[in-house]
Amino acid sequence: MDRGRGRFITFEGGEGAGKSTQLRRLAARLEALGLAVVATREPGGSPGAEQIRELLIHGEADRWDRTTEALLHSAARRDHLRCTVEPALAAGRWVLSDRFADSTAAYQGYGHGMAPETLQLLYGIAVGRLKPDLTLILDLPVEQGLERAAARRGGGARYEALDRAFHERVREGFLAIAGSEPERCAVLDASGDAEAVERAVWRCVAERLALPAVGGDS
Amino acid sequence: MDRGRGRFITFEGGEGAGKSTQLRRLAARLEALGLAVVATREPGGSPGAEQIRELLIHGEADRWDRTTEALLHSAARRDHLRCTVEPALAAGRWVLSDRFADSTAAYQGYGHGMAPETLQLLYGIAVGRLKPDLTLILDLPVEQGLERAAARRGGGARYEALDRAFHERVREGFLAIAGSEPERCAVLDASGDAEAVERAVWRCVAERLALPAVGGDS
Repeated sequence: MDRGRGRFITFEGGEGAGKSTQLRRLAARLEALGLAVVATREPGGSPGAEQIRELLIHGEADRWDRTTEALLHSAARRDHLRCTVEPALAAGRWVLSDRFADSTAAYQGYGHGMAPETLQLLYGIAVGRLKPDLTLILDLPVEQGLERAAARRGGGARYEALDRAFHERVREGFLAIAGSEPERCAVLDASGDAEAVERAVWRCVAERLALPAVGGDS
Repeated sequence: MDRGRGRFITFEGGEGAGKSTQLRRLAARLEALGLAVVATREPGGSPGAEQIRELLIHGEADRWDRTTEALLHSAARRDHLRCTVEPALAAGRWVLSDRFADSTAAYQGYGHGMAPETLQLLYGIAVGRLKPDLTLILDLPVEQGLERAAARRGGGARYEALDRAFHERVREGFLAIAGSEPERCAVLDASGDAEAVERAVWRCVAERLALPAVGGDS
């Protein structure tokens, strides 16, 4: 395939939505088409941003206020873009990121009540005009997501300690974002099994990004 | 003395200007008046902000771009204000900080060329409407400051590895800030010995903040 600028696809959604799993599966399908793929994540995705991630995910749930969290996420995002995402896109690679700026809007904004105008200012400062080519929002009921997440892990993620109403606001936030930017975002039902979600992701990517030679649903 | 809200005094200036020394000496003089004093610094000054400081002062000079640096400084500042400065002021303590937001304006703005409007936006997000009651800008020729700083230390500070022209821009930046906010800022000649500077600091603080019972210059 031609090696113009790559595409930037972000996976968003609440806890236990299966973002990491779906990201890996989409990466494998794209690689099978001969595309060069970079799988990354936020917060993190570059050496500096991974150090900032450590500050964000460890410690007490209230160790930072929502504004400090948003500033740290923005700093990490800036480093991630500069050191990982932009060079990869410029080299023609497809970049798949497990979370990006919509998570800041959903968690610090809808979840914790930060003003959307403030988050937009931070987006402009940290990111500038770049937008993902496609954002896949994996949606499922909060209870199902929290159960999956709890079953999966020992420790680490602070968000899961927060209350149920918070996660409902986050879910509503992701859906509101998708509603306001339908050309960039697609909401996919993530309550089914991983294979069903994988097929839905693939259909969506093929359609939205006009992939060549994608037949059937396999 | 009455325990209303405390005062917030910041020390600013380039490398080797003697900020830490003068801060300690002013703290001692204020304490001798019976005032409760908190001596702090940026980046840092609270447990979380000190962790962010580690990310800022270690590593290669170009490990972060100027925008990421400004975001990290803003995150640290927010935490410092929330956890250290605001509670101390509310309890009637006088807070003396070795660097504050003018350093971000001077280093990332004047030094590295970030737009002042962007830095003002970040100030609004991280700090809000709070301003120092008094900012003491310790000014001295760049060469003298760099010589003092080099004589003083082994390792750590990244700024000293940057070029002379950069430090000239930073110095001009501090002077421009003082020129634009003369009611908040005072520029003091820091090229003399520590005793002379200490007396100038004390005269300035006594005058500007109307300290009671400050006589002579001792």
